[in-house]
Amino acid sequence: MTALDADGALALELDRAHVFHSWSAQGALQPLVVAGASGCEVALADGRTLLDFSSQLVNTNIGHQHPRVTAAIAEQAGRLATVAPSHAVLPRGRAAEAILRHAPASFSKVFFTNGGADANENAIRMARLVTGRDKVLSAYRSYHGNTGAAVVATGDWRRVPNEYARGHVHHFGPYLYRSEFWATTPEEECERALRHLARVVEAEGPGSIAAILLETVPGTAGVLVPPPGYLAGVRAIADRHGILLVLDEVMAGFGRTGSWFAFEQHDVVPDLVTFAKGVNSGYVPAGGVLMSDAVARAFDDRVYPGGLTYSGHPLAMAAVVATIEAMEDEKVVENAARIGAEVLAPGLAALADAHPSVGEVRGTGVFWALELVTSRATREPVGPAAMGAVKAGLLDRGLLPFVQDNRIHVVPPCVVTDAQVARALAAYDAVLSELDATL
Amino acid sequence: MTALDADGALALELDRAHVFHSWSAQGALQPLVVAGASGCEVALADGRTLLDFSSQLVNTNIGHQHPRVTAAIAEQAGRLATVAPSHAVLPRGRAAEAILRHAPASFSKVFFTNGGADANENAIRMARLVTGRDKVLSAYRSYHGNTGAAVVATGDWRRVPNEYARGHVHHFGPYLYRSEFWATTPEEECERALRHLARVVEAEGPGSIAAILLETVPGTAGVLVPPPGYLAGVRAIADRHGILLVLDEVMAGFGRTGSWFAFEQHDVVPDLVTFAKGVNSGYVPAGGVLMSDAVARAFDDRVYPGGLTYSGHPLAMAAVVATIEAMEDEKVVENAARIGAEVLAPGLAALADAHPSVGEVRGTGVFWALELVTSRATREPVGPAAMGAVKAGLLDRGLLPFVQDNRIHVVPPCVVTDAQVARALAAYDAVLSELDATL
Repeated sequence: MTALDADGALALELDRAHVFHSWSAQGALQPLVVAGASGCEVALADGRTLLDFSSQLVNTNIGHQHPRVTAAIAEQAGRLATVAPSHAVLPRGRAAEAILRHAPASFSKVFFTNGGADANENAIRMARLVTGRDKVLSAYRSYHGNTGAAVVATGDWRRVPNEYARGHVHHFGPYLYRSEFWATTPEEECERALRHLARVVEAEGPGSIAAILLETVPGTAGVLVPPPGYLAGVRAIADRHGILLVLDEVMAGFGRTGSWFAFEQHDVVPDLVTFAKGVNSGYVPAGGVLMSDAVARAFDDRVYPGGLTYSGHPLAMAAVVATIEAMEDEKVVENAARIGAEVLAPGLAALADAHPSVGEVRGTGVFWALELVTSRATREPVGPAAMGAVKAGLLDRGLLPFVQDNRIHVVPPCVVTDAQVARALAAYDAVLSELDATL
Repeated sequence: MTALDADGALALELDRAHVFHSWSAQGALQPLVVAGASGCEVALADGRTLLDFSSQLVNTNIGHQHPRVTAAIAEQAGRLATVAPSHAVLPRGRAAEAILRHAPASFSKVFFTNGGADANENAIRMARLVTGRDKVLSAYRSYHGNTGAAVVATGDWRRVPNEYARGHVHHFGPYLYRSEFWATTPEEECERALRHLARVVEAEGPGSIAAILLETVPGTAGVLVPPPGYLAGVRAIADRHGILLVLDEVMAGFGRTGSWFAFEQHDVVPDLVTFAKGVNSGYVPAGGVLMSDAVARAFDDRVYPGGLTYSGHPLAMAAVVATIEAMEDEKVVENAARIGAEVLAPGLAALADAHPSVGEVRGTGVFWALELVTSRATREPVGPAAMGAVKAGLLDRGLLPFVQDNRIHVVPPCVVTDAQVARALAAYDAVLSELDATL
């Protein structure tokens, strides 16, 4: 590695001395030092440039430093940076309208939050208040945020040291490659996953369940695109029992799957949708709950007992408006769909054909996972040390990857080009060859 | 009221159609439409200019549109708007360093969040993990945020429809004007409040309590400045039982009380401090936990199970650095202290002398409350209708007030001038005369 520049050395020194990092033991961290970024590229303080196939935390859907969005932020900063949520300001109304342009007709209002966790907190609160019920049902393979209810709605390991909220129940979702239901076909996995869900609902008591909360496409859990019919089947179970369906599109929304919302591809309309990340590519912290008119109207005459200082923050809202307008004008979502269908799908399939370490490839749009195994027969996951080598190998080849458990998540910005995908595929190919050789 | 301009009319229309508001029934809302702001003034879309004695939600400590902060945001937007929290970037390290400049020497790290609620969520998580205990003790008269644990740590009515987190216990804090302890002097209130707290700790089981979480000066609950010795007494109780002391300075911190942190005035050093609002005046959503070295070191070799996408967000961090540097250079905290001691304290005392409806005046710095009563003998709170008239009367006189329950909170930006305070005092005086006449 070449030396850091002066700003980079200071950044690293201050970081190690004074910045406490998320989801980590702090002692041994060796963060990359980022100096700047543009489009799908990130510039490091040691002079290297990396191709960003992480979209950071899968949030820079429009790419880095889109000039229209950064200009809108600067303009709004000069006009009105902050205002209390009780007052009305134009950027907030325009942001709500821009989001609703891409939502089903049954949706009418947006409650803005600071991110995905408090979006899920508020969606859960809304569902409980509207139904008068306590329980929230969500998937073991899920992540919904790090705050009180959101982290217990979460199913993965991050829930376990944080279980201080009551009323959360978990179930298994469809995941054919590691089926919990002894299924061998997508149809069978779908049917059995719905049967399992219906049984959990029955066993918990349908009248006690306020909401079924699901990531439309579970993301951190492994880009688990549900089989055709699954979400429609969940909707039917919810309807049968007066349960609200909340879809978490924090990661899947705003182009990631090749459509504005992932649920459009699944013939289902939820009651509430939570979002963050892609709504403004994370340029300013923002999230929110997209509310069906029926849920919104339930609070016309009844106080909604939730809120926050930065709800509908003007800077964040200006970034939302500019992001959505730029994505519309530049057909960014269409690009994600085309790249997914025409470039990533065949390219990743070719990697799977060539490398025995690839157990499964799955995804849609610019939202894919390569699941790596030590043996296709046993499907045993590649272990942490080997995955560390995969990550290092990708960095050495100029790629900023998203490596999670035994998987490479292929999650570039939605503006990624054919040529950039080709470069990334070449890097994956080389690293997978090295991995194959160790198995 | 004069007519809204075109942008204002559109803002109001979009707001009422599509924006879901915090802590409200949605049907009858009539929000003010804000077009811009500068310093201590807010410009409405109907042409009026209001003197902002709310600081919005008590967050614009540096005033509106401080040019140094808005320039820093615009500059950072042009350089690097967003980055994942796992990477190191200079603005994040500099923000942590700037905050730590004003903290006791025992503090070494900062964990950044999006606001005050998730700051408290993470402080609670840290305390539970470090102590291996479950319970969090906090005051009935408190507000700590709207997410899962934060809203149940909250003591006021906002907790009650949201009690889905376990491990929360509440106690009564000192509030001599409405003593829970039959006390008649500050010394007696302090001693009895500590006795009560010690008894709750004993009765709950000291070995089960992870943290005592307190607003240093409970804010929304009524600017309840604790009597001398109270917080030092709490610290002693915590120390006796190995309990961590977490002080919530989301509202009280960064100049509001006339010092950088309110606890400086109370001869106490906590283990964790939560902050948001004043840290960058809310120009970009940000909050965090200021961590003692002892707590930070507990996670050197152990994974910290919490985190969020926008932790240490570059735009927010640039705003933190610019805000703190501007506050230092322009002696903004010193101004808040001087205004409090020399202008607000005597001015508000004079109002109390003149108006029988003023039951008590209390505060420090630019953080005051006028508690309004129908009778000084009975101390019966002025009711909602009369308080609505107080609020309307202040707006009519060109003041944007902060009215809460039966109180006027006097919470201008820390940059407020003597002349602006004089204008506000005149408005309060006139409205209180009208109120007196109705009693």
